[in-house]
Amino acid sequence: MADALKIGIAGLGTVGSSLVRILGERANELARTCGRPITITAVSARDKSRDRGVDLSAIQWFDSAVDMANSADIDVFVELMGGAEGAADQSVRAALSRGLHVVTANKALLARCGVELAVMAEDKGALLNYEAAVAGGIPVIKALRESLTGNTVSRVYGIMNGTCNYILTRMEKEGLSFEACLKEAQRLGYAEADPTFDIEGNDTAHKLAILTTLAFGTQIAADEIYLEGISNISIEDIQAAADLGYRIKLLGVALRTDTGIEQRVHPTMVPHDSVIAQVDGVTNAVAIESDILGELLMVGPGAGGNATASAVLGDIADIAKSRPGAQRVPVLGNPAASLAPYTRAQMQSHEGGYFIRLTVLDRAGVFADVATRMADNGISLESIVQRAKGSEADSGSKTIILVTHATTEQSIRKAVDAIKSGTYLAGEPQVIRIERPKAF
Amino acid sequence: MADALKIGIAGLGTVGSSLVRILGERANELARTCGRPITITAVSARDKSRDRGVDLSAIQWFDSAVDMANSADIDVFVELMGGAEGAADQSVRAALSRGLHVVTANKALLARCGVELAVMAEDKGALLNYEAAVAGGIPVIKALRESLTGNTVSRVYGIMNGTCNYILTRMEKEGLSFEACLKEAQRLGYAEADPTFDIEGNDTAHKLAILTTLAFGTQIAADEIYLEGISNISIEDIQAAADLGYRIKLLGVALRTDTGIEQRVHPTMVPHDSVIAQVDGVTNAVAIESDILGELLMVGPGAGGNATASAVLGDIADIAKSRPGAQRVPVLGNPAASLAPYTRAQMQSHEGGYFIRLTVLDRAGVFADVATRMADNGISLESIVQRAKGSEADSGSKTIILVTHATTEQSIRKAVDAIKSGTYLAGEPQVIRIERPKAF
Repeated sequence: MADALKIGIAGLGTVGSSLVRILGERANELARTCGRPITITAVSARDKSRDRGVDLSAIQWFDSAVDMANSADIDVFVELMGGAEGAADQSVRAALSRGLHVVTANKALLARCGVELAVMAEDKGALLNYEAAVAGGIPVIKALRESLTGNTVSRVYGIMNGTCNYILTRMEKEGLSFEACLKEAQRLGYAEADPTFDIEGNDTAHKLAILTTLAFGTQIAADEIYLEGISNISIEDIQAAADLGYRIKLLGVALRTDTGIEQRVHPTMVPHDSVIAQVDGVTNAVAIESDILGELLMVGPGAGGNATASAVLGDIADIAKSRPGAQRVPVLGNPAASLAPYTRAQMQSHEGGYFIRLTVLDRAGVFADVATRMADNGISLESIVQRAKGSEADSGSKTIILVTHATTEQSIRKAVDAIKSGTYLAGEPQVIRIERPKAF
Repeated sequence: MADALKIGIAGLGTVGSSLVRILGERANELARTCGRPITITAVSARDKSRDRGVDLSAIQWFDSAVDMANSADIDVFVELMGGAEGAADQSVRAALSRGLHVVTANKALLARCGVELAVMAEDKGALLNYEAAVAGGIPVIKALRESLTGNTVSRVYGIMNGTCNYILTRMEKEGLSFEACLKEAQRLGYAEADPTFDIEGNDTAHKLAILTTLAFGTQIAADEIYLEGISNISIEDIQAAADLGYRIKLLGVALRTDTGIEQRVHPTMVPHDSVIAQVDGVTNAVAIESDILGELLMVGPGAGGNATASAVLGDIADIAKSRPGAQRVPVLGNPAASLAPYTRAQMQSHEGGYFIRLTVLDRAGVFADVATRMADNGISLESIVQRAKGSEADSGSKTIILVTHATTEQSIRKAVDAIKSGTYLAGEPQVIRIERPKAF
């Protein structure tokens, strides 16, 4: 049997501790499958005294991840600290400069400087694996980076934030408000005390930026993403969507257009009978549409210590199965030096269907005016529904719901502006984009 | 750039011709991604004169795949002929004895002698890749063989035959009979003139046998699979399933039990609101439940020239990215020499829920007798429904539908035998097993 693969783990939170435990418990199976033992020779974390439920006594301890990356006797540096800058960034760079392989779960770091790190890795013939950085345990990086080699991807989209999907699912199933479901998610540990990063879509955006690069062979452009969170979604939207045969999900979507790459994260209506519409709770799902394979959808746990540790373990095993300097998987699917510049498609030219919900005063002529504004902007309608519920009828207002056929963002904005210039709106219009899976 | 990877393709049917075309059209992208060109240097097929829409003039032609495997100047032997024996078998063995890497889409061959071939490959340090053999374009082999390394799998199941899923979907959506839908599938090219192999479950069984080995580390045991096709499913079953919140799919299921591995292929009821229940038409889906990752579901095209060629291309690219003798992925997930013997769990001890549909004479006491037979065998019921439709009522018969809580196959068989020993049955009882996804 070949020499052991020596691992150093930086960061001993939930994922790091799970990984240490699993590498111990499964040592024999892993050695058999990989053809060599996998041994943890070094770890680093802030607080040595904390009890993590795993025995670290035989492993060299570093207080500093950078020191470990610079000096530990390891083949693979596993970065599980998180954070786009600071120690995570410095230690990964230090490891790559030594030619060590790196495994990381750090989406923020990759979204910020993944191309730079990929260039470093490829220059040194080192592997940089990051399956856990996107959609936790779902092997979407491997699918895009390896399985789809040779395919031209046209669209990639998915539910990549469990917190948002949990909240939207509970709102729909139980008719509760966004605020109530957020509190429940916090109580259950599915949402942070400050949930902004999740519910405003930033977390999804980091993941999407990585998928975009893999799918389209362009530079990473995490700052070029149109962003809209779910805090504005009301139970009325969800119910109206359900009535029309749709469900609302927070999707990250990237697609190739004639004018560039469109990247957006926003609440999205998907047809109720599509497979992705059934993905509930904290579960994640990623769909990839490509020209040779067709459509592929992967569903699984997007977070959690074990699921994430499983993805990290798969990355480590891939390195263990290769022999030194032998495997050359381009970090970002294409060689980092050959990635094309990122050209952002104009959001105004986004084409698709739209759902629009208007709260209007109960006056004659309003319905006709709304329909006219749509027609003026060349927007054709799939359906237009007017209704008044109990409380609305009392207050003298009613709801108009429109679903449009494919049109452009620009046309919708013009039409909505025209509607807003009227005098009959009793609240801010709600506009939700519709996304249709191609095959299922 | 490294030397070109030289490919020989045996079999130029739909998949082979697609592959030749794609390797030509995408040559530059593939060379860039893989760090070396991929060149077809040899092909073999029966009829050289047939027009396949691709230019083969610069490529060495072999009438015999075995001759090509024995003598062509190639690094990778790509077998796309199909068939469990004969030329496919002989040529793959010839290629492996020379230490050539092999890529194959041949599920029948692997189901029959995959372990033997894996031993040959591993002895020579050659790679044997077969992503296209199971569920077409869905990268389930890679998920089980690479991503899930270190996980203990408890269950793997899926919709792996597009013909059957197409027929069941049309029956449900349009209320048509099995026979009518089969004819339509044949007209559209989704079913063969002799559809037996698909509709009786043999095709699914071959694929399941391969997944079982990858999931549980046991010898391949394609002959040890409980097999039941869909030709016995009536529109009444599908409608009764829908009324009770289920859909009927032909599933291949493998799981680890206390007494051995349970492998079965049969029509199965899955809860209507599960993700897999939404997989319609010729689309395939495979779910894997494991202890670290949790549940993973992959959905995509299970057949077709392009989707299959995409999987073959991914396998070739994996070889191109590795350097000679450098990558050691055990062919069947675990080293072939270490695979455990296969122990078959007794079907009688299968535990699960059951759907039973009885056509009975419209007599007093029948309902009570049926319920008593169930209770006698310790079977508790989730629901029991009695109804008479127009035509039944006229004929003096009615339908009783039972859904049981988890029980054993043995208990169900005893109860059904007891019911059959009564004098009130007006037709053969229908028994359909229920399978519940764990997470979604």
